[in-house]
Amino acid sequence: MNFIDELKKYQEIINIELEKYLRKQECPEKILNESIQYSLMAGGKRLRPILVIATYKLFKEDYEQCMPFAVAIEMIHNFSLIHDDLPEVDNDDFRHGKPTNHKKFNHFTALLAGDALLNQAYIVISEKILYLIENQYNDSIKANVKAFNEFTRAIDRMIAGEYLDTQLEGKKISEEMLKYIHKNKTGELLKLCVRMGAILGGATENDIERLSKYAEKIGLAFQIKDDILSEEGDSEITGKPVGNDKEHGKTTYVSYYGLEGAKRELNKTVDEAINEIETYGEKAEFLKQIAMYIKDRNK
Amino acid sequence: MNFIDELKKYQEIINIELEKYLRKQECPEKILNESIQYSLMAGGKRLRPILVIATYKLFKEDYEQCMPFAVAIEMIHNFSLIHDDLPEVDNDDFRHGKPTNHKKFNHFTALLAGDALLNQAYIVISEKILYLIENQYNDSIKANVKAFNEFTRAIDRMIAGEYLDTQLEGKKISEEMLKYIHKNKTGELLKLCVRMGAILGGATENDIERLSKYAEKIGLAFQIKDDILSEEGDSEITGKPVGNDKEHGKTTYVSYYGLEGAKRELNKTVDEAINEIETYGEKAEFLKQIAMYIKDRNK
Repeated sequence: MNFIDELKKYQEIINIELEKYLRKQECPEKILNESIQYSLMAGGKRLRPILVIATYKLFKEDYEQCMPFAVAIEMIHNFSLIHDDLPEVDNDDFRHGKPTNHKKFNHFTALLAGDALLNQAYIVISEKILYLIENQYNDSIKANVKAFNEFTRAIDRMIAGEYLDTQLEGKKISEEMLKYIHKNKTGELLKLCVRMGAILGGATENDIERLSKYAEKIGLAFQIKDDILSEEGDSEITGKPVGNDKEHGKTTYVSYYGLEGAKRELNKTVDEAINEIETYGEKAEFLKQIAMYIKDRNK
Repeated sequence: MNFIDELKKYQEIINIELEKYLRKQECPEKILNESIQYSLMAGGKRLRPILVIATYKLFKEDYEQCMPFAVAIEMIHNFSLIHDDLPEVDNDDFRHGKPTNHKKFNHFTALLAGDALLNQAYIVISEKILYLIENQYNDSIKANVKAFNEFTRAIDRMIAGEYLDTQLEGKKISEEMLKYIHKNKTGELLKLCVRMGAILGGATENDIERLSKYAEKIGLAFQIKDDILSEEGDSEITGKPVGNDKEHGKTTYVSYYGLEGAKRELNKTVDEAINEIETYGEKAEFLKQIAMYIKDRNK
C-alpha cells in the first residue's frame, strides 16, 4: 500500500472511531453537541492520532489498544483549534475552508464546545483505564496510566505555548523565544503522540528517548511548514487567508529566516528526524513518510 | 470544635494544599500562572473540597488519601467561574468583591487560565493514580480510577448546564428546564464531591446512593440560596451586584416561586437533605451542618 492510501486508511479508521463518541440524541444541549461535531468532523488531517498508531505499530500489531489515546489527542487538538480561533485569541474566521466554530455558532457556544472537548478527552481515557482495571488486565494498566500522566503534562505545556504565542503577537521576539513557544504550542503535543504510542507499545526507555527526538524534529518541521504555508500557500487549499501571520505582525520562522532560509531549515530538520529512526529499518517506513509528508503537504 | 471553626480548619488545609500546586518560578508564561493563582486563591468557600473530605470521613479517618480529588475539584470549580464570568457568557466584572480574572488580566489570559485549570485538575488526578500504581497500592487503585471516571462525567454535565444557562438567558423557561439546568450546572459537581468521598472511603453501593440523594438536595438548596442572594443579598458581602439576575432577565427560583416561595422551598430541601443522612447519627454531624450552612450563608 502506498503512503497516501495508508494515510487515508487510518484517517477513515480514526473518523469511524471519533463518530462513536459523538452524541446525536435529542437533548436540551443538542446545539452544543452539534458545535463539537462540527469542529471534530471538519476534515482534519488526523496527523496526531496517526502518529500514535504508527509509533505503537513499531512495537505491537494490535493498535486498537492505543485507540482511546489516539481519539483523545484528536479531541484535544480540536479543543485547541476552537479556542485559538476565538476573537480574543487569533480571531480567525475560517478553518479548513469553513467558518470557524464561533462564526458558525457563536462565541459562548465555541468557548463551551472547546471546554467540553478538552474534558471529553479525559472521559475517553478514564473509560479505557477503568475497563482495564475492571477486567484485570494488570499488564497494561501501568503503561496506560503513564500515558495518561504524560498526556496531562503535554497539554499543560500546549496551553502555556498558546498563551505566549498570543501575548507576544506583534512583538519582536528572539529566535530562542520563538523556539520556546513552538516547542510548547505544537511540539509537545506531537512528541506526546509518539511517546504515548511507544509507552503503550511497551517500548524500552532507549526507544522512547530516540522516538522523542524524532518527534521534536517533526514538531519543529511542522511549525516551519505552517509558517511557509501562511506566507505562500494556496488559500483555496489551506483554507486560511495567505499573509495572515504577516498581517498580525507575528514573528514566524519565515519572518525570522526569510522564505528561502525557512525552506532550508525545514529540509534539514526533516532529514534529522528521519536519521533518528533509521535504526528501525523497514518497520519505520510509515514514520519516515510522515516526516516527508509534513514537509511536502500543501495544507 | 464548633462548625465554623471546623470549616475554617479545613479551608486552611485546602489552601495549603492548593498552594503546593501553584507555579511561582520565573518563566515566560509567568503572567498566565499569576492569573491562575489570582482566581484559585481569591478566597472561595472551598465548599466542594470540604464536601469530599467530610464524606470520606464518614468511612475513614486518613483524609489525606482523598486530598488530590479535593484539590482537583476546586480547580474545576475555579475554571468554571473564570469562564462563566467572561464577556461572552455572564459578562461579570466582580467576583468575591474583586475584579474578575478577565478584568484583572485580559480576555485571552482568562480564557487560557480557565483551560489550564481544567487540565491541571487532571494532572493532580493522574499523579495520584500513577503514584498508587508505582507503589503497588493495589487495594486503592480501583476506587481512585472510579472516582476519576465519575469526575470526567460530572464535568461534562456541568459544561452542558453552563451552556443551557447562557443560551436560555432572557427566555421564559419551564420549571422542569430550570431544574434540568441547575441539576447539571451546579448539582452534578456537588454530587460528584460526595460520591468521590464515598467511593474513595470504600462505601457500599447503598451508602453511595443515600449520600447521592443528600448531595442532590444540597445542590438544589445551593442554587435556590444563590438566587435569593442575587435578589436580596448584601453586595458588600456577596461581592456581586444585587439584582444582577433580574437585570439579565434570568429565570431563577426567585422569579419562578417569588422570594417567599423560594425561601420555603429552600427550607424544605435542606430538611430533606438532613433526613437522608440521619442514619449515620453523630458521624454525619458535619455534613448536616454543611446543609444548614448552605441555607444560612450570606455570601
